[in-house]
Amino acid sequence: MIIIGIDTAIRKTGYGVIDMRTGGSIQILDCGLIRNAPSLPHSECLRRLAGGIRELVSSFKPEAAAIESAFVSRNVKTAMILSLARGAVITALAECSVPAFEYSPKSAKRAATGLGEADKSQVAAIMANLGGLDISQIPDDATDALALAYCHGNLILRAGNGIVKQPQPI
Amino acid sequence: MIIIGIDTAIRKTGYGVIDMRTGGSIQILDCGLIRNAPSLPHSECLRRLAGGIRELVSSFKPEAAAIESAFVSRNVKTAMILSLARGAVITALAECSVPAFEYSPKSAKRAATGLGEADKSQVAAIMANLGGLDISQIPDDATDALALAYCHGNLILRAGNGIVKQPQPI
Repeated sequence: MIIIGIDTAIRKTGYGVIDMRTGGSIQILDCGLIRNAPSLPHSECLRRLAGGIRELVSSFKPEAAAIESAFVSRNVKTAMILSLARGAVITALAECSVPAFEYSPKSAKRAATGLGEADKSQVAAIMANLGGLDISQIPDDATDALALAYCHGNLILRAGNGIVKQPQPI
Repeated sequence: MIIIGIDTAIRKTGYGVIDMRTGGSIQILDCGLIRNAPSLPHSECLRRLAGGIRELVSSFKPEAAAIESAFVSRNVKTAMILSLARGAVITALAECSVPAFEYSPKSAKRAATGLGEADKSQVAAIMANLGGLDISQIPDDATDALALAYCHGNLILRAGNGIVKQPQPI
């Protein structure tokens, strides 16, 4: 089961593509960052973001995407810019017929490490271990995206075993 | 100069396509609504919205789009959902290489009627008159979109005459 995790932001979107095996082990197929220079206008950031997601989907044919749920920031302007970027990502996924599932950062970390409050290095260490990689091969900004993908895969396995309900796409 | 005005919302996006003549008269080429049923999930609304914008761009080849600027609503959740929809619209425009310009609803109304506080029926009456249409041919939800398109066209004419600065796309 190939899953893409996406940790969206207008300037730095982390992604991680994993193959989740029925036993719960994973293979990390790709992980990295879609970067937008601070000088780029928003419209160009969104175009590059949507294009990047489409390229990843076409390369890896994921059957689902796991994205970070929108958090209500105290800074409304920041929340609105993040939502613009999420709009570009969700549109690109929907146009490629990839269902998108939302998870909070806490749920993703808890699924990966057992702890909702784990820090990035703990999450990276566990994802590297599960995926049989050296931790240096996981860029810092892709860690949360990998945890999101793992969180979804783990939930699907547990739903398949009747332990939890099937999650619903957005 | 063909301009598309877009009044974005997740369930009901108004659009208006005008041809702005150098003398300041306009022809209304199309106006209407992209509707998303309340039962549709957000991902499907965004897909339909982006697809609708792409179809309009391919039919009318506008050289610019005028969209409503994001207003900071007191209801953060509403503002975030609107931003998702704006993300889909701006992405579709950017992917079609149509530059997008933002105007506040007040600026658009003021450009169309001379009054920032004009109501929808006043705006519709003036747009119908400028475009040589009967007011019944302008759907209520497309009125603000037409005013946005007119606002941009009017500004470009005035910028061409050196009265104001050229607006910058987002």
